[in-house]
Amino acid sequence: MDTNEKAIEMHKKWNGKLETISKTPVKTREDLSIAYTPGVAAPCRIIAENKEEAYTYTMKANTVAVVSDGSAVLGLGNIGPYAAMPVMEGKCVLFKEFGNVNAVPICLDTQDTEEIIKTVKNIAPGFGGINLEDISAPRCFEIEERLKEMLDIPVFHDDQHGTAIVVLAGIINALKVTGKEKENCRVVVNGAGSAGVAITKLLLTYGFKNVIMCDRMGIIGKDYPDLNWMQKKMTEVTNLSNESGTLADALKGADIFVGVSAPNIVTQEMVASMNKDAILFAMANPTPEIMPDLAKAAGAKVVGTGRSDFPNQVNNVVAFPGIFKGALEGHASQITEEMKLAAAKAIAGLVSDEELNEDFIMPEAFDPRVAEVVSQAVKSHIR
Amino acid sequence: MDTNEKAIEMHKKWNGKLETISKTPVKTREDLSIAYTPGVAAPCRIIAENKEEAYTYTMKANTVAVVSDGSAVLGLGNIGPYAAMPVMEGKCVLFKEFGNVNAVPICLDTQDTEEIIKTVKNIAPGFGGINLEDISAPRCFEIEERLKEMLDIPVFHDDQHGTAIVVLAGIINALKVTGKEKENCRVVVNGAGSAGVAITKLLLTYGFKNVIMCDRMGIIGKDYPDLNWMQKKMTEVTNLSNESGTLADALKGADIFVGVSAPNIVTQEMVASMNKDAILFAMANPTPEIMPDLAKAAGAKVVGTGRSDFPNQVNNVVAFPGIFKGALEGHASQITEEMKLAAAKAIAGLVSDEELNEDFIMPEAFDPRVAEVVSQAVKSHIR
Repeated sequence: MDTNEKAIEMHKKWNGKLETISKTPVKTREDLSIAYTPGVAAPCRIIAENKEEAYTYTMKANTVAVVSDGSAVLGLGNIGPYAAMPVMEGKCVLFKEFGNVNAVPICLDTQDTEEIIKTVKNIAPGFGGINLEDISAPRCFEIEERLKEMLDIPVFHDDQHGTAIVVLAGIINALKVTGKEKENCRVVVNGAGSAGVAITKLLLTYGFKNVIMCDRMGIIGKDYPDLNWMQKKMTEVTNLSNESGTLADALKGADIFVGVSAPNIVTQEMVASMNKDAILFAMANPTPEIMPDLAKAAGAKVVGTGRSDFPNQVNNVVAFPGIFKGALEGHASQITEEMKLAAAKAIAGLVSDEELNEDFIMPEAFDPRVAEVVSQAVKSHIR
Repeated sequence: MDTNEKAIEMHKKWNGKLETISKTPVKTREDLSIAYTPGVAAPCRIIAENKEEAYTYTMKANTVAVVSDGSAVLGLGNIGPYAAMPVMEGKCVLFKEFGNVNAVPICLDTQDTEEIIKTVKNIAPGFGGINLEDISAPRCFEIEERLKEMLDIPVFHDDQHGTAIVVLAGIINALKVTGKEKENCRVVVNGAGSAGVAITKLLLTYGFKNVIMCDRMGIIGKDYPDLNWMQKKMTEVTNLSNESGTLADALKGADIFVGVSAPNIVTQEMVASMNKDAILFAMANPTPEIMPDLAKAAGAKVVGTGRSDFPNQVNNVVAFPGIFKGALEGHASQITEEMKLAAAKAIAGLVSDEELNEDFIMPEAFDPRVAEVVSQAVKSHIR
């Protein structure tokens, strides 16, 4: 059986992957009177006095909602809320397995921005955090921003920030391997959707000065047609000399390429035109922007992909479980830029100087230290 | 420690009672590729072709949302969504422990009817059923009716129908004990909120002809002041000779009293005025409308309460887990009147003729046969 067949069989066997269980036994009348009526009224009364006590007496303490409208699921596109469920259940499974965080998939029967915002706001009381997932750009930007303003619990669009954190972690180590300095690097980010925008923002926050975004029609600048409001905003902080041209033009002399775009769109010639010791994160899934062996042969020094069968896998699973674990443990009301930077540094820091080399810049997804150091990094930045 | 102290300690120890876990291990890269990307895309594609397949490949197959706005929680009243969480988590625990049904508490940050309806509709795709809980009357009637029309999964307000099913089960057996016939009984239901209305409706559906509803100001008839729309509707099918008067007046010559009202409002004189071999379900919590020993001393034959420390406990837990278990297993699109009647008969049927007596008309809450026979009864009525 191949992976697809195994996945079909497993999902069918269990009817999905996630279940809810009781932490406390309910085998006797006394159990029942403690977990339910009449005893349950006692914690209810305490929370009614002070809603912060919900973090002590309810699962809000350690539970996130994984919310999607199914509009931009993996590489599958707008497949809707029913078909999005296996991905959201999977995400919930990873929250628990990697971060010991409870998670509930919420797939929405609406793709209207206002409806999504209202619905998430309305269901928020029982959750300690909201992980937005696979919502298409540019709606995802507004939905996240508005919910962050409304809610007193963290709201985190993982396609944006999880990806950005993991890419930054990889880049921090790739800079060490190549001896490059962030202030002097020319960075090209290809793909101006949710991930591309968030990666660009976090790289700028980290201290990169020269970032060029590209999309299907080449370099994004003030004259690029049909930019959405977020892409327009990005032209104020990227491509400061207002270049225009193709992706190939952008890559000439570049130090770093980050692709969240489409398979096989970077050629060996483009890599050869980059600066010495080029760093490439070719994260299109399942087929990268350029295969690692081709990039290396054309002169690249460090190549990362989204795949587990090549070195340097850039995998969100090293970020989001620990991010929410830390945020929940510290009752954070939001995930700040400082927390994202700290998380990226913590992930990068798990690769020791002895281990670090061009084919080992990221900790393993299954490294049990990951969620712990990320959660500590996040907690240390709760104000 | 008393029950309250034990409940506080237990809820604090675990931060609530419910957790989410994975049904499948995620310990290796291969596990990850089956539970998440890239393998997860295979079941997604199948559901995108046919959304019914969500019942095969996702937790929708066996998961309900327990939804409350916190407006009418237990005897605590309108304590809001945060303080309602321990009750909703408790309900979810009972779903799993008694019916092996996964359940997720959803506590809503709105008490607006339209907002509640929209929110529940929007989150429905991932769930196989909606259990509405502790929503105040008369909003609960409209919310349930409208959601039933909109959604293709069962919507069930347990405070109404769970209670009604369990009361009917008890009454079926109490009729056997007393030799009374439903067609000839005068029934008084005291309390015209969600439970009282639903009990009355189900008794009429079962075949009772003469039911009188009472509320704080006595017998409800066409001239009772300030009736809500649902109570008005009930005057068309109850109290057909349009009596007026107090609860005491209503009880004169009555065969059955069902109280979902307030403590100690039924006197021994009232019981003595009832017909021979009177049946009383005094379900105010924690203090019944009349204590069982007083009612018995005044001539009652069968007395049930909501409490586990008296005989004949009328406890919803014998209904809702099996109801949803059956509905989910059969992919029912709604819970019909036939299913409710069948469930009540199935519950009553678990008390054998040998066991049946005035102090044993209900199966035990922990009787492992309960959820099974109720689910079979429900399934046999799926059209």
